[in-house]
Amino acid sequence: MKDDSILLGHGGGGLLSHELVTGKFLPFFRNTVLERLEDGAVFEIDGLKLCFSTDSFVVNPVFFPGGDIGSLAVNGTVNDLSMCGGTPLFLSAGFILEEGFPMIQLERIIESMAKASQDAGVQIVTGDTKVVPRGTGDGLYINTTGIGVVHYQKVVSTASIAAGDMVILNGSIGDHGAAILSQREELGLDTPIISDSVSLNGLVRDVLEASLNVHAMRDATRGGLGGILAEIADQSGCQIVLEEGSIPVKDAVKGVCEILGFDPMFLANEGKMVLFCSREDSQRVLEAMKAHPYGREAAIIGRVEKKGTGRLVLNTVVGGSRVIDLPAGELVPRIC
Amino acid sequence: MKDDSILLGHGGGGLLSHELVTGKFLPFFRNTVLERLEDGAVFEIDGLKLCFSTDSFVVNPVFFPGGDIGSLAVNGTVNDLSMCGGTPLFLSAGFILEEGFPMIQLERIIESMAKASQDAGVQIVTGDTKVVPRGTGDGLYINTTGIGVVHYQKVVSTASIAAGDMVILNGSIGDHGAAILSQREELGLDTPIISDSVSLNGLVRDVLEASLNVHAMRDATRGGLGGILAEIADQSGCQIVLEEGSIPVKDAVKGVCEILGFDPMFLANEGKMVLFCSREDSQRVLEAMKAHPYGREAAIIGRVEKKGTGRLVLNTVVGGSRVIDLPAGELVPRIC
Repeated sequence: MKDDSILLGHGGGGLLSHELVTGKFLPFFRNTVLERLEDGAVFEIDGLKLCFSTDSFVVNPVFFPGGDIGSLAVNGTVNDLSMCGGTPLFLSAGFILEEGFPMIQLERIIESMAKASQDAGVQIVTGDTKVVPRGTGDGLYINTTGIGVVHYQKVVSTASIAAGDMVILNGSIGDHGAAILSQREELGLDTPIISDSVSLNGLVRDVLEASLNVHAMRDATRGGLGGILAEIADQSGCQIVLEEGSIPVKDAVKGVCEILGFDPMFLANEGKMVLFCSREDSQRVLEAMKAHPYGREAAIIGRVEKKGTGRLVLNTVVGGSRVIDLPAGELVPRIC
Repeated sequence: MKDDSILLGHGGGGLLSHELVTGKFLPFFRNTVLERLEDGAVFEIDGLKLCFSTDSFVVNPVFFPGGDIGSLAVNGTVNDLSMCGGTPLFLSAGFILEEGFPMIQLERIIESMAKASQDAGVQIVTGDTKVVPRGTGDGLYINTTGIGVVHYQKVVSTASIAAGDMVILNGSIGDHGAAILSQREELGLDTPIISDSVSLNGLVRDVLEASLNVHAMRDATRGGLGGILAEIADQSGCQIVLEEGSIPVKDAVKGVCEILGFDPMFLANEGKMVLFCSREDSQRVLEAMKAHPYGREAAIIGRVEKKGTGRLVLNTVVGGSRVIDLPAGELVPRIC
């Protein structure tokens, strides 16, 4: 059945997504850049090292506490370029609008994209608009694709992760997922949970200036912290060990997870990243993160123990330890 | 009413699209690159001149004579980059799949994208897949965004068009629109009309090697030859005069247009372009086009008479002449 038609899980960033990409896309599109399966592509044109990344946004609802589909679309692509070690410069914006979508909402979304671009210091330089008949879309979908320049001297890639590396996270997890969920479920919280959607390029710039030994970075979007680290463990072939007690989670996010039966480890983030660097540079990187507004709660959450197993292990607060597998699909469809 | 909600015409490439872009997007995203409103953006990074273009594809049906949404998505973006005078190099591919879409169809589409990329000599280096629940999409939508390098010395832009320029077209018009229409209307033609969907980068390369006085290029997609030339007349402020008798139209396309009540001048093309160059170079450009498989039927179809009016005038075969305005919207929704 799985192989017959597209399931929601094929877009969830988990195991089914992985199977779709490696089983269907890679065999046809095979090339050395795509095969790296990073957040973005890195290549050279006439000797200039560039990064390039695309994302379509289908989040529902389009407006949520802390953002909307417009700011999310800008921040998401800015972050993917940043994770390549690049400086994001230019974005494209492709809109698929459903006939009947309110113009006033579109204006709010455009304004929000413009503000997010300005905050991140990038320019939206080209675009496209398609309209599909009523009933063949759902309000609007936005694709953003971005270009950046890579000046960092070392190759920032999961392939560069080495035993002994430290794993650093820039703040509390699950905020975006919990914000969307609590709005969708109409939980009516006294204080709404705010999405963490922000552009991380400023934070990344400060970190890369502080250390020449950053090995890999990844933003913990679909699949959450657990999902992306399980994928990185698999890709890099490394055993990654996390200390549960060192991972910050807001009380309100814990509360929503308890009510709805979710684990913050697998909830999406839109302003959180993990970074792998050498042990010697880990304090310097941590300090650079903490000095930036989007890294104040940064923490060293784990380490890379050895090559060869490709497992993610969580040492729990109660003293146990368990292996975390790549989830089958996203727990929450249309989270971004 | 027009201003309250999104209409199909806002995505048609005509007057409503133009109003949406200049009235809503430009005021917020304002920057000198976007303001040029060309098929793609041209900018420099560290002194290297690049072009960048995005398009979302929502064509219905996804398979049609001469192609499918996959090859169309590759050719469309390759062509937009080519129209900037650039050499297309790298593409991204963003898929929005509807839950339940048949995997076997997705495979055919991926294979077709891979073949079109290979034919055009470009690489798909990064991608994204989202799945939306049944009933909130329509099969699949594909965004492609591309990067190319611009080595051509002159600025290829509608702003470079000058009085005295010749207008050259690379072949017969309306093939793509007629192919989609006749399939959609189930006309059951003895010989189906084949879409002209191809990548024009090879043709453009040959032309740019033949002449240093190419002023502007544009592929005649949504809105057709009439629509894009009316837009160029408006943007450049030039009076463009076309000779109807010199514009090639296949008999089968004329036939479909007569049955369904369309004008080939406004039907979409996916492998046709217009080029503006100095009169002195026009024969050289025409010969370079004719020597390429995708330009065998190339013809000089008109000239730029003067600056200052921004009108498109058609001298008809029966000896009259009429002004062609930008159509309000696309005559055929979801043509690309």
